Amino acid sequence: MDLAELATKLQSGDRRSLARAITLVESARADHRAQALELLQALGQQNQALRIGLSGTPGVGKSTFIESFGLMLTGQGLRVAVLAVDPSSARSGGSILGDKTRMEQLARDPRAFIRPSPSQAQMGGVARRTREAVALCEAAGFDIILIETVGVGQSETVVAELCDLFVLLLAPAGGDELQGVKRGIMEMADLILVNKADGDLKSAAQRTCADYAGALRLLRKRPQDPADYPKAMMVSALEQAGLATAWAEMQSLANWRRQNGHWSTRRGQQAEHWFREELRRGLLAVLDQQPTKSIVADLGLAVAAGDVTPEAAAQQILRLLHKG
Amino acid sequence: MDLAELATKLQSGDRRSLARAITLVESARADHRAQALELLQALGQQNQALRIGLSGTPGVGKSTFIESFGLMLTGQGLRVAVLAVDPSSARSGGSILGDKTRMEQLARDPRAFIRPSPSQAQMGGVARRTREAVALCEAAGFDIILIETVGVGQSETVVAELCDLFVLLLAPAGGDELQGVKRGIMEMADLILVNKADGDLKSAAQRTCADYAGALRLLRKRPQDPADYPKAMMVSALEQAGLATAWAEMQSLANWRRQNGHWSTRRGQQAEHWFREELRRGLLAVLDQQPTKSIVADLGLAVAAGDVTPEAAAQQILRLLHKG
Repeated sequence: MDLAELATKLQSGDRRSLARAITLVESARADHRAQALELLQALGQQNQALRIGLSGTPGVGKSTFIESFGLMLTGQGLRVAVLAVDPSSARSGGSILGDKTRMEQLARDPRAFIRPSPSQAQMGGVARRTREAVALCEAAGFDIILIETVGVGQSETVVAELCDLFVLLLAPAGGDELQGVKRGIMEMADLILVNKADGDLKSAAQRTCADYAGALRLLRKRPQDPADYPKAMMVSALEQAGLATAWAEMQSLANWRRQNGHWSTRRGQQAEHWFREELRRGLLAVLDQQPTKSIVADLGLAVAAGDVTPEAAAQQILRLLHKG
Repeated sequence: MDLAELATKLQSGDRRSLARAITLVESARADHRAQALELLQALGQQNQALRIGLSGTPGVGKSTFIESFGLMLTGQGLRVAVLAVDPSSARSGGSILGDKTRMEQLARDPRAFIRPSPSQAQMGGVARRTREAVALCEAAGFDIILIETVGVGQSETVVAELCDLFVLLLAPAGGDELQGVKRGIMEMADLILVNKADGDLKSAAQRTCADYAGALRLLRKRPQDPADYPKAMMVSALEQAGLATAWAEMQSLANWRRQNGHWSTRRGQQAEHWFREELRRGLLAVLDQQPTKSIVADLGLAVAAGDVTPEAAAQQILRLLHKG
């Protein structure tokens, strides 16, 4: 593969090259990994897209929202990339519903790029893969990157370290179901959107929205944000209602953070976080390499049998590694 | 400190020596750590106590339960140790209510040993400290070790890797509050005890117990246990009712597991888990040592400022370490 050519094409916005580059960063092969690092290095960090984390459990209408919201943005001339962070898809061995068929119109839009979740990914791998895919989308000149998660908790933590804004999508529900959303996820949200505010569900959506607005007021204020954030609002992805207002809110908050220095501070903190994660991963990688892997497995059996204490066995490996 | 003398006294069951030994394993000082490892090595793994993990949120009457249950056991001639695993106590800088004053009678019982939670502990440190304190209590000949947690999730995971039985203590409540207990914690429980089954709360306790018994039936069966476990039962720590039955259930399950080989299999798996944890901790320890710590801090600032990419910075440190 000609990396220089790939980089040039990608930077010109070519979506096939972007797809190929993401496949490269997703690969576990050592030679692919080396090429991926070389590619990322060559691309540098020129553009900054607005990275929006979007969380919501299955059933809240996330695909419909992304389709409607994405088409509104591309209609304004913006280029939109959609990435899925979904460790649970590893179970089914691929993306849950086939991301592109979930968003048919957006997938055909030349200003949009949709990347299905990779199969067989593990959480650690997902974090790295998504971070690098985001960097590639920025290099390809996308204006907005939607990073989608399924609301199970662990993937949200990854996305919080990747995005500039975090949006939580909810469905209308009885007030007692408010506790169904993990507090940790609610605390991450900059904007809560109650979807399906249409037809029979409209009044339920109003109640749910009021409940969450109340719950948000009880959360600790964030010193870095205007006093009226985080906010809860209603939208209807189906009827395309409220989407422009939601987008205005996102832009307003993003601009406020840019002007007050919080944007770059956060990006810096995120980069530092990933530096430390890469460092940890690199230090622990030795455990997956031979001959250490086999020695650890054998000693593990001896520990389980009670022949060696856990501490002594660990010391033995550590001495071996420090000698080598 | 004369470690041989400490070991001998501890093995004779001397509680002051046990307390001193636990203080030693709790210390972060390098010389104390070396002594702690030497002591644990000298003591070996002779005795096996019955290790009971006990989880319950504040307000369920955990202290009263431990006091009543502990006194019943010591009344039968058994020696009982109580250890608290409580990362949240780090916030208040010590044990929440002063563990010994919470269990006044048990604290005065010569057959009991109560260890308050250490202050300023971090989760990783809590895991290691508790595991080593358990080993010390076993070496001191205790028959039962109660490992108490506050039901917030993370500490339960630690305790599950330490105990032979896991008991979840609950208070009577409306059926709709069932969801308040995290599913993950319920899945760990071998026995659910609904406390406060006395006075005005008796009928509420009955309902709660029935609700949880129903919920337990919906959980996946464990191939290694008799078909009627996990169980839900009512107790009243205040009136000392149901405690003997609960204890009979615990013994029955423990004996069943011993006879069917599951006890030793689980202890083996737990030991292997701690071996791998120690190994990870050992490999990452270099990040807390100079000069690496300072270099990482400096590079972290450069990464945050955007002067170096996270990946390149991590590679730089890893190359440095592999050279050294």
